Amino acid sequence: MKELLAKIREEGQVIDEHILKVDAFLNHQIDPVLMQKIGEAFARYFNKKAVTKIVTLESSGIAPAVMAGLALGVPVVFARKKQSLTLKKNILTTTVYSYTKQEQSDIFISKKFIHPKEQVLIIDDFLARGEAAIGLTRLVQAAQAEVVGIGIVIEKSFQEGRQKLIDLGLDVYSLARIQSLKNNKVAFYESEEAGVKA
Amino acid sequence: MKELLAKIREEGQVIDEHILKVDAFLNHQIDPVLMQKIGEAFARYFNKKAVTKIVTLESSGIAPAVMAGLALGVPVVFARKKQSLTLKKNILTTTVYSYTKQEQSDIFISKKFIHPKEQVLIIDDFLARGEAAIGLTRLVQAAQAEVVGIGIVIEKSFQEGRQKLIDLGLDVYSLARIQSLKNNKVAFYESEEAGVKA
Repeated sequence: MKELLAKIREEGQVIDEHILKVDAFLNHQIDPVLMQKIGEAFARYFNKKAVTKIVTLESSGIAPAVMAGLALGVPVVFARKKQSLTLKKNILTTTVYSYTKQEQSDIFISKKFIHPKEQVLIIDDFLARGEAAIGLTRLVQAAQAEVVGIGIVIEKSFQEGRQKLIDLGLDVYSLARIQSLKNNKVAFYESEEAGVKA
Repeated sequence: MKELLAKIREEGQVIDEHILKVDAFLNHQIDPVLMQKIGEAFARYFNKKAVTKIVTLESSGIAPAVMAGLALGVPVVFARKKQSLTLKKNILTTTVYSYTKQEQSDIFISKKFIHPKEQVLIIDDFLARGEAAIGLTRLVQAAQAEVVGIGIVIEKSFQEGRQKLIDLGLDVYSLARIQSLKNNKVAFYESEEAGVKA
């Protein structure tokens, strides 16, 4: 997606070979116009899938997920990283490991918001090793619903997440695919630079 | 705001005299179309204030804040409840108490996203005792920016938050004002029932 790649080039900060900081427009400060375009891009790709619900993970997945929900006309559910006082019963839960935060955490979704046979689109801000997306997939499948696709804003394609999701039979669509963060530089896949894929 | 009051009547659950559960459309499952209308309602009211930035608190403030940001054409910054590995330096921080969660927590914003003299609109999902909104106000003022208004989705008007914010000289605009949750029933202010105010 052209506008996203441009934004990453202009405002992304390469911290090291594994970390790209995008807090200027995605995960601390948010650019609402870019989020709207991101939501529309997800909707164009997943429109054929008869999506009935979007599932994401708080907090940085919420903005792109809500914009995709608006474009597709479906509700969004965000999994919580912490149980609230009003989320105690009838929950789906699983453990995911965050390499960025170097900690394990449990994530929670209320059972009442994912029904059997729903066609769920999972959306997240980043795909790296696939922990969050696979954890969300487990929750959706535990509810006997189907994951019809995984929509990712920024994929670190040099890590194994995409392949793990494909091995699970999932349709992964990433709006920006980063080939490398070496030499303090963001390198995208060539097809994307040329606008072929995104 | 008519659509919001209808949604609260249909899908809100009164847990006790103090707790209204709205996880069906606001803070666990999200209704994107309603969020868009909420964003537009905030924009209509605060349009006159020359807002340059919206500040909210993760996670439930993000959806209404991003929609308001889209409608007003300004970026959104969400304060974090946890320091991330990439949010260590140049931060604004303060402590807020959550009565719902019965715990104190620190909230964080990167200094680089709130500039001196910015005209900041604070948006949050709930206003009860005012802890979160007042904490966000402290952060904005610590950055030498101005809080030009507080936009709230649901106000529990029987608690003291609104008055505390007004006493600080702030312009508080709530889309739903709940007078009481007694007898397992949501009672709104009469003016709102009649559509006068919202």
